[in-house]
Order: sequence, then structure tokens, then C-alpha cells
Amino acid sequence: MRNYVTLLFLGALFLIVGCKNEKEQTISEQEIVIEKTDPLPSWNDVESKKNIVAYVEDVINENSPNFIPIADRIATFDNDGNLWSEQPAYFQLFFAMDRVKAMAVDHPEWKNKQPFKAVLENDMEELKKQGEHGIVQLIMATHTGSTIEEFDKDVKDWITTAKHPTKNVGYNQLVYQPMLELLQYLQDNNFKTYVVSGGTVDFMRAFVSEMYNIPSEQIIGSRFKTEFDYNAGNPQIKRLPELDFNNDKEGKALNIQKIIGKKPVFSSGNSDGDLQMMQWATSNKYKSFMLYVHHTDSIREWAYDRNSHIGRLDKGLDQAKKDGWTVIDMEKDWKVIYSPR
Amino acid sequence: MRNYVTLLFLGALFLIVGCKNEKEQTISEQEIVIEKTDPLPSWNDVESKKNIVAYVEDVINENSPNFIPIADRIATFDNDGNLWSEQPAYFQLFFAMDRVKAMAVDHPEWKNKQPFKAVLENDMEELKKQGEHGIVQLIMATHTGSTIEEFDKDVKDWITTAKHPTKNVGYNQLVYQPMLELLQYLQDNNFKTYVVSGGTVDFMRAFVSEMYNIPSEQIIGSRFKTEFDYNAGNPQIKRLPELDFNNDKEGKALNIQKIIGKKPVFSSGNSDGDLQMMQWATSNKYKSFMLYVHHTDSIREWAYDRNSHIGRLDKGLDQAKKDGWTVIDMEKDWKVIYSPR
Repeated sequence: MRNYVTLLFLGALFLIVGCKNEKEQTISEQEIVIEKTDPLPSWNDVESKKNIVAYVEDVINENSPNFIPIADRIATFDNDGNLWSEQPAYFQLFFAMDRVKAMAVDHPEWKNKQPFKAVLENDMEELKKQGEHGIVQLIMATHTGSTIEEFDKDVKDWITTAKHPTKNVGYNQLVYQPMLELLQYLQDNNFKTYVVSGGTVDFMRAFVSEMYNIPSEQIIGSRFKTEFDYNAGNPQIKRLPELDFNNDKEGKALNIQKIIGKKPVFSSGNSDGDLQMMQWATSNKYKSFMLYVHHTDSIREWAYDRNSHIGRLDKGLDQAKKDGWTVIDMEKDWKVIYSPR
Repeated sequence: MRNYVTLLFLGALFLIVGCKNEKEQTISEQEIVIEKTDPLPSWNDVESKKNIVAYVEDVINENSPNFIPIADRIATFDNDGNLWSEQPAYFQLFFAMDRVKAMAVDHPEWKNKQPFKAVLENDMEELKKQGEHGIVQLIMATHTGSTIEEFDKDVKDWITTAKHPTKNVGYNQLVYQPMLELLQYLQDNNFKTYVVSGGTVDFMRAFVSEMYNIPSEQIIGSRFKTEFDYNAGNPQIKRLPELDFNNDKEGKALNIQKIIGKKPVFSSGNSDGDLQMMQWATSNKYKSFMLYVHHTDSIREWAYDRNSHIGRLDKGLDQAKKDGWTVIDMEKDWKVIYSPR
């Protein structure tokens, strides 16, 4: 579990502790002028938008030397920090902590047992002391043991009721409106859009399909080991407390090959964890498009890159510059960050 | 590797040795009367066909209580013995043996090294003596080490040139015409058709897409571990000589959940290795359809079931009877076995 936890969750704690002094941010609703012919109305008329539209119009044009057959229009998107926010910690960690609180009634022993005690008492300093081992216990206690159906219901209940600790809105409100438009634009042009994230796949499937119009079979994530039980005619698949696959860095490229078997032609991420996926995508025989989301908006969202514990974008930024990949400047390129619903 | 090899390849050897006395079988071309409105023209007007058509017409009917939304029309098909033949050994084993012969020029040491020596000398008795360990060596030597692109080319070259040892036609001619029609019928009615096979996924992807009109992202199989190499800007994914996933029995149900995340509504197999996939499929909330192919035609194909080393159908036949699943009698139900192309 070392890698998984380190990458997904541990660094988060430092930021949770640190974020107490962060100023409350509210989402200001902005009017969006929707032009009828503009597929990306929440984007300013900037280079990133122009690059995207020019690419799509080129590769769907049967008369272009860069034409890509529909079957090969594979687009892969990271989730955390790329389609929705990821600060001050990956939202899946907040889910785990909220679940500990919800499950505590059936676990009276947690009142006196770390790391659960720390979560129940909102004692972030203590939770930080519990370190990696503590986080593993939290994740395993909340993410495994249940059936597919039970866990799906837990996540659906959470995503529709829980509030982000500083934004004070539901997590499902913290989706990037410009990226929703980009997904829709690609789908309208017969790209098959995938989510390829370090988050666990069963967690994402509970809400990603509805939020992004992406079916469960196009969601690729980290996984726990599972077991099949025929259960006298009422079959169940249970998640076991052991990691099956860490869908990050090299893992993203490997899983894309394992599950899709085609190289993406369009790939979008926001961190070094997406770099290998994008490197793999650039190596296909078709004209490809690589897109990095750069978190530059400390007012409307968060600003972080090379030195962040979460969503670190360092080597990726260098390669984007070197290879001419498109980088979105969130502050300057996007009229709105979140969907004004 | 024990399980994998045992299930996929080892039993095959006994049949290879045994099949020397088998009478040569030839494919007789038969005229098929294609009725314009009949989606399954190669099927006799039997119960299996009636059941299939009645099911499909029911679940695509928006006014039926059994209507299934398009997004949930997932159909999973085993490959070996279900979409193409699997006797006297899984065709993937013949590929491995043919590859050993093709690669021998670069491996002069194989002339004196078992199990390669036995393959090069067509010494099946000796190969049998080499047992499981020998088969593992053959598979690893021919299926790993190369890049995705190199291996894909190897398989494509093989499938278009190699001949089946007793049928004396290309392996791609040994596809069941009635099943091709069934796949097409389901695809025409917006079912998403998957191949879910114990064969390795990279092997199948080289030809399955074209043979069955099924894209690579809908092919699920066994896998080797892989590694990603950035390779100074020319990224490669290589298969390592270690099994990553054995896509058989419980593995089929588990992989369907991992990769698709939905229960199939239609599932078809021909052996006990498909039973858990079908058990899992029957547990979904929609009306489901389970279909077993029963090998009953010793003249046009092969006849085998409960006692076969390959494609054993024993527990599955019992459950099919108990639960009212549809069983195809190949001899009686199909006008032709193979495509008369």
C-alpha cells in the first residue's frame, strides 16, 4: 500500500492541517453568454481554446491528412484536479473520513481506537501523527468489506449530501464547467471519453457517469482485490483490503493498454501523475493533443504546481513547454471555474 | 502459473497426441437460404433460436416491463469453443508452437534444448513429457519480451497464414457462422458485445476486432504483467514473463466488474470456465439470457462435454438444466457450423 497511500492520501493531511487559515472562498455566480456556435462558451478566446478547436476540426475532417477514424478517437481525462477540484485534499479522503463518522454507531470501539478516534474528534494533528498506517486503516475500513451495491449506495448518498470543508458546497458542485463543455464537445465529435484516475474505480462509478456523461465501462481507476461468492444463487463480489492496482503514473499508461488496447489521441491531466499517460498517448500514429490544466487561480479555485503535495505539476510542466503541449491557465483562460447551477 | 497453464494449455497436449488417429474432417460448403427478415439465417427453426429472438424482442421493446435501456445492454461471449473451435487444442497453443518454429532461426540453441527441441521436431510425445514446466517455457518465450506492436504483427501474420492441423484451413475459417449472426443481431439491437476469454488479451486483439466486429476495448482476456518504458520519447509497453490475471472461472466475473462495471444481461459460453460469468450475469436486475453452446457434432465439428480436457461442460450443463438456460445443440440447431466463405 505504500505507494498508493503516499500518492493518494498522505500528503493531503498536511494541507488539511494547513488549510485552517485559508480564507473562506465562495463561488460567485457569473453570467455566461452562450454563443450558439461556440462549443466552449465558458472559455475565453485564448490560445488553449483555439488549439483545441483547431485540433478537433482537423482530425474529424475526412479530407485532412490528420483524419482519425471514429473507432480510434480515444480521449482520456484525469479526474482529481482535472475535472473537479482536489484541494485541500483528494475528495475521496473526505469521503473516507465522513464514512468513519457515519459508521461509528456500529463501531463503538472506534471512540477509543486510533486513527478512528482522531477522525471522530476532528483532531487533524493527531491524524497526522497516525501517518500512513493510520490512513490505510481508514481507507480499508470504509472502502472494503461491503458489496458493490452497498458501497455504491454509500458513495451516492455522500456525494449528494456532504459539503466541502471550505467551499461549503457539495462536492458535485466543484466540477469544472469548461471541462464539462470540453467533454461534451469531444463526445459530440464521436470521441470516446474515458476517465483515467488514481481514485478507486468503484468510488468514481457511483457519480462520474452522471456528472460527466461517461459510462462505467469508460472509467478506469485504482482497484482493490476482489472475490466472487456464488452465495447460493445470490452472487456477490466483495472488495478485499488489499490493493489490486495503483492507477497512477506508469500505471495509467499500463491500464489504458490493458483495458482499452488503443493509444489515446487526446489526453488531459493536471499533474506529474498524468505524465506517462500523456507520453504514451503522444506515441500513437495519429496526430495527438496533450492538455495540461495549470492551477493558477488562487481566488476562484487554488493556485499550486511544482511544490504542491497534491497534484504536483513539475516534470509535466517542463515537458509541456519542451514538446509544445497546450497548458490551460485557469485564471486567464476560463470565464468560470465551476458550473453555475 | 499453475492454474493458467493447467486450464489453458496442458490438457491440450493429451488431445494433440490422441488426435493423430482422428479422421480428417473437411468443411462442406452448404447453401444458406437467407430470409430477408431472419436475423439468424444459419439457425434451424429450433427452441434456442426462438428463445433468443423472443428475449431480444422483449427487452428492446419500450412498452415491455422487461425493457432494458441501451446503456445496460451488455453482452459477454466466451471465445474458444464459443465463437470459434478449440480442438484438438486451444488455437493459442498452436500459435505458440508455430512461433517457436518461426523464431528458431534466432535461437540456434533451441535445437538441443527442451521443450523447444520437441516442438521443432514435432515430437509430441516428448513435449507431453516436458509437462507444465515445458508449456510455460513455450508460452513465455513466444508471448513476452516483445512490444505490443511487434506481438500484434506476429499474431496477424500467423492468423492469415497458419493452417489448422486436421481441418487444413486457416484458423480464421473456424469461426461459427451462427454465432457471427448472433453477434450481429445483438449489435444491431444496440447491445454492446464483449469477448471475455481465457485467452490472452493481446493475442485476441490482433484478430478479434475484425472477425467479430468487436473493438479492442470490448475484448477482455488473461494478461501478462507489463512495464512502461519512456524510452527517450519513443514509449514502449512490454509484456513480462509473469501472469497478471487469469481470466477464467471466477476471474471472468471479477474482470467484468473491474473493467465494465455492469452486469451482463446476455452471456454465452461453452464450458464450466464460463459458469461464474453467467451466474454473475443472472443476478442483475434486468431480465437476462444465458446461452450455452453444447458441442454435439462429431462430424462437422467435435463432440465433447463432461469428460473433455478442453472446454469441459459439466457443472454448467447441470445448472443450465436446473435454471432453464438455453443450450444450443450444435448438430441439430445449426444449419452450418463455419462461415462458407
